[in-house]
Amino acid sequence: MGDFMLILNRGKVKTVLEYTKDQVFIRFEDDVTAFEGAKKESMKDKGSINCKISTIIFKRLGESGIKNHWIDTNGLATMRCHKLDIVPLEVVVRNKAAGSICRQTTIKKGTEFNEPLVEFHLKDDSKGDPLLTPDRMKLMGYDPYTFISITNKVNIELIRLFNLINLDLVDFKIEFGYDKNGELVLADEISPDSMRLWKAGTQESFDKDIFREDKGDLLAAYRTILKDLERLDYLPYLDSEKNKKE
Amino acid sequence: MGDFMLILNRGKVKTVLEYTKDQVFIRFEDDVTAFEGAKKESMKDKGSINCKISTIIFKRLGESGIKNHWIDTNGLATMRCHKLDIVPLEVVVRNKAAGSICRQTTIKKGTEFNEPLVEFHLKDDSKGDPLLTPDRMKLMGYDPYTFISITNKVNIELIRLFNLINLDLVDFKIEFGYDKNGELVLADEISPDSMRLWKAGTQESFDKDIFREDKGDLLAAYRTILKDLERLDYLPYLDSEKNKKE
Repeated sequence: MGDFMLILNRGKVKTVLEYTKDQVFIRFEDDVTAFEGAKKESMKDKGSINCKISTIIFKRLGESGIKNHWIDTNGLATMRCHKLDIVPLEVVVRNKAAGSICRQTTIKKGTEFNEPLVEFHLKDDSKGDPLLTPDRMKLMGYDPYTFISITNKVNIELIRLFNLINLDLVDFKIEFGYDKNGELVLADEISPDSMRLWKAGTQESFDKDIFREDKGDLLAAYRTILKDLERLDYLPYLDSEKNKKE
Repeated sequence: MGDFMLILNRGKVKTVLEYTKDQVFIRFEDDVTAFEGAKKESMKDKGSINCKISTIIFKRLGESGIKNHWIDTNGLATMRCHKLDIVPLEVVVRNKAAGSICRQTTIKKGTEFNEPLVEFHLKDDSKGDPLLTPDRMKLMGYDPYTFISITNKVNIELIRLFNLINLDLVDFKIEFGYDKNGELVLADEISPDSMRLWKAGTQESFDKDIFREDKGDLLAAYRTILKDLERLDYLPYLDSEKNKKE
């Protein structure tokens, strides 16, 4: 890293720094936020834990043929990634009902969906990241099906991965961007901050709901997930030839 | 009416009173509310004006073969209606973009849709009447297509009616219920409180946006609409043989 790097984006818990014309560093901060930033806390090592979990997941997805922005992870809390033109959508996949869908419908928490539900939100904090219908997406120029096929593959891989460590994948949020070749690529982070994980067969949270609902030690849960994922497939977080496409 | 009537439902601007086992009175109050009741005012005669407008519209729709709950209007601000089992959905039809769709997407106010957009909200004030995707509706046990065909017919009739009095129908909200024969029937009110009407070719409001956005004399606009509708087709608001199905 140079002495100075241009901050491209300062998010609620991550900072994106310009590295080269085509690459960025994504630094995971030690913050945790909920309710659109209304609840906020700093937790030592949280950034590095989530960076490591994201790294393991992106590496795995890359090895399964799912293109994503990750290149390597050199610093403890920093991933080197391809610079993308980010699509301002949040794509949410739900295998079971939890969170906002229960508040906004009559669907009960824990309801299992026969088919995973893929939902879209406009990524715009000032509007509160509103839910989009497929019609609204199309009117804004996005084709839902562009995202759905990649998203379903990600879901299958993540369900499998977390089942190996005895966790049910309830739901997760991903983001996309276009790389310099115009290809749609998975972006952002994939960590227990952006998903719901329940201890298999229960509704016991191993994710940010612990913080949202004040129900225990968030860092302890995240550390357990990291340790279990590392045990599955220990590899240093240095680089991956398969993901390196400079 | 008897000396006492059971209040079945007290809404923000309407009261539903039990008349017989199968019939109700719907009384339009002199209130106007916006932003989920956060803004509220009382305006003399507003109830009776909206009752008359709703009456003209329901009568017209009935004559066009669109089944609705209206039987007759004897009191100035009270419609006699078939008692229905109300479906807790708000069905919104949009011909042009205005209001919440502009706040919740990047679609600009006034955008004309090639096809009318039919959207659904869960009718639940405590949840803020959240927008539903078709998938969420289906998971709650509702088939969007049950409502869409009737809704499109209503839209065609209303566009035609308001064009005759030089107003563009921007959007409107309707509700449905099942009658004692299990038939899906149009319910609630249809008035400038539940629609957006712009002076033809402009964005000048003749609807509740005048109140929401403090841009003029709401009652004067409603009176103009009523007068113009009455001039189109003057009939006393007494009864309609076509709608009477007791």
